[in-house]
Amino acid sequence: MKIALIPGDGIGPEVVDQALRVLTKLHPEVETTEFDFGARRYHATGELLTDADMAALREHDAILLGAIGDPSVPSGILERGFLLKLRFLMDHHVNLRPSILFDGVASPLANPGTIDFVVVREGTEGPYTGNGGALRVGTPHEIATEVSVNTRFGIERVVRDAFARAQARGKKLTLVHKNNVLTFAGSMWARTVDEVGKEFPEVATDYLHIDAATIFMVTDPARFDVIVTDNLFGDIITDLAAAVTGGIGLAASGNIDATGVSPSMFEPVHGSAPDIAGQNLADPTAAILSVALLLRHLGDVDGAARVEAAVASDVASRGETRGSTTEVGDRILALV
Amino acid sequence: MKIALIPGDGIGPEVVDQALRVLTKLHPEVETTEFDFGARRYHATGELLTDADMAALREHDAILLGAIGDPSVPSGILERGFLLKLRFLMDHHVNLRPSILFDGVASPLANPGTIDFVVVREGTEGPYTGNGGALRVGTPHEIATEVSVNTRFGIERVVRDAFARAQARGKKLTLVHKNNVLTFAGSMWARTVDEVGKEFPEVATDYLHIDAATIFMVTDPARFDVIVTDNLFGDIITDLAAAVTGGIGLAASGNIDATGVSPSMFEPVHGSAPDIAGQNLADPTAAILSVALLLRHLGDVDGAARVEAAVASDVASRGETRGSTTEVGDRILALV
Ligand SMILES: CC(C)[C@H](C(=O)O)[C@@H](O)C(=O)O
Ligand SMILES: CC(C)[C@H](C(=O)O)[C@@H](O)C(=O)O
Repeated sequence: MKIALIPGDGIGPEVVDQALRVLTKLHPEVETTEFDFGARRYHATGELLTDADMAALREHDAILLGAIGDPSVPSGILERGFLLKLRFLMDHHVNLRPSILFDGVASPLANPGTIDFVVVREGTEGPYTGNGGALRVGTPHEIATEVSVNTRFGIERVVRDAFARAQARGKKLTLVHKNNVLTFAGSMWARTVDEVGKEFPEVATDYLHIDAATIFMVTDPARFDVIVTDNLFGDIITDLAAAVTGGIGLAASGNIDATGVSPSMFEPVHGSAPDIAGQNLADPTAAILSVALLLRHLGDVDGAARVEAAVASDVASRGETRGSTTEVGDRILALV
Repeated sequence: MKIALIPGDGIGPEVVDQALRVLTKLHPEVETTEFDFGARRYHATGELLTDADMAALREHDAILLGAIGDPSVPSGILERGFLLKLRFLMDHHVNLRPSILFDGVASPLANPGTIDFVVVREGTEGPYTGNGGALRVGTPHEIATEVSVNTRFGIERVVRDAFARAQARGKKLTLVHKNNVLTFAGSMWARTVDEVGKEFPEVATDYLHIDAATIFMVTDPARFDVIVTDNLFGDIITDLAAAVTGGIGLAASGNIDATGVSPSMFEPVHGSAPDIAGQNLADPTAAILSVALLLRHLGDVDGAARVEAAVASDVASRGETRGSTTEVGDRILALV
């Protein structure tokens, strides 16, 4: 098992350290290569992600990423130039984000109910393509466009993936979009769900506008089983989902090329949190749960379940005091 | 005072009835014209909003709308062909959506705190322009684009409006966007807030990505005073805000042409709720609160305050049983 490690910025290195301990305990044979992507390298060399980097990353079975982002770099540079570029070039079309409210975790909701769903967020098109532009920048006549690009090919593959996951779970798929306003893209999403749904007669489907979906996320999150949605709506709904299940300290994600051609990448949903970086304060749980997703993707279903069970048992016993990054790592490691 | 009434579809007529009673009590001199826009007229005539309709609407000081939308009409037809067309043609650039957690109203949040903020949502550009298109529809090679169009002119006027509101309130303005991904439009929004902010040195500003804003909306909604954001992010964040403040049964909105050239339009945030239409079940509170926004817009600050106080006092005494549409209307009417 060859894993590319991208510790990244801020708290990234700390949480990746703990994730790696868990991975190594289950797979002592793992070979890792560390990559220095992020703000430090950008400042030192101006480089974000080169062709040589891409080739080197491709030598691995999967990628484990901590976090990318630093206030010293203007907004958008690292995101567009590294993180999104990597997702797009690796064709990570299935952005997989499970949401579980673990026993013992406090939700901000008064009556959260049982929350256990997964969002299949499209990862390679929609409003994230970087398509668009600006004219007369800095003048009173400035105009800027952002173009959401959507293809039947791109939608169909994630819709089929989402149906397959729904079939293997609670047999319910919810499409989230805004097809009463974004009618060109929205109608293609809706038709694709209808058509692919014929291959999955056991899966019930429904549809919610993104605005209504945010309402249900706080009034009845238990209604969701699998959500399929576009790149931007998926970004929004998964952060909200993380919040209602106790915070982004617990939310893991996979950026998956379901064809297996490129290595898939696993990362916590949280960012680099520079304010608490280097202080052994960050919660490494999301990074550790990302290892579970990585293991399941590479076929070690049993290892994935062991990591998830260890996390569930640890969070159930945390009470008010989670402890430091290394303390959480120590406890989960002992439980695996 | 000449008011155009658009009862619309579903529960629209019922809630507008109650709103009109309140308006008439405060302004017995009000002259109203009822317009039959919505699904019924569309089915009967194929018409949504004609030039003659626009001219007739312009004869009024303001518009009061119930709700538009019916399952018998494909998604997007009434929204694009009527509601958004009206907002765009009337240049309703300030889409104003206050969020208050009234005493006695149950929030889905365990610890909501004091919620009292207002969202200034841009209403005439962004991803709502209908710009975009589709090719090879229905084939495996279908492609669809949705173009978000953003101008300095369009952004600056709502940003200035939002600053003025912040200046008159809690002196805090939060820009919500996704400027690390939508860099062309996002950077224009951020620069415009920085520049217009110089005119309002007392107002503190901050910035949140839309995904982070949804997190704070459930973990710390009390942090918000005035939010300014684009058309789509505003749609999303105001529905979520309505949910955390007890539901869209209470959320009012104004679609304002701040230049005063066109009549502004006031409407509940909720939809037509066809499942409960005609049964005297709908909550008319949001429509009644929309009358308060209408009155304030037309300069009757005192009347607006009386409506809001009546609503606050009624919701505080509701307990578990709100009562029927007419019962709520009766109670609030008596309190005004
Ligand atoms: C950092 C940012 C570009 C990214 C996204 O929007 O996809 C993040 O919010 C996420 O959800 O992984
Ligand atoms: C019905 C729809 C077009 C509309 C919108 O998206 O603006 C609604 O959701 C709203 O918020 O008023």
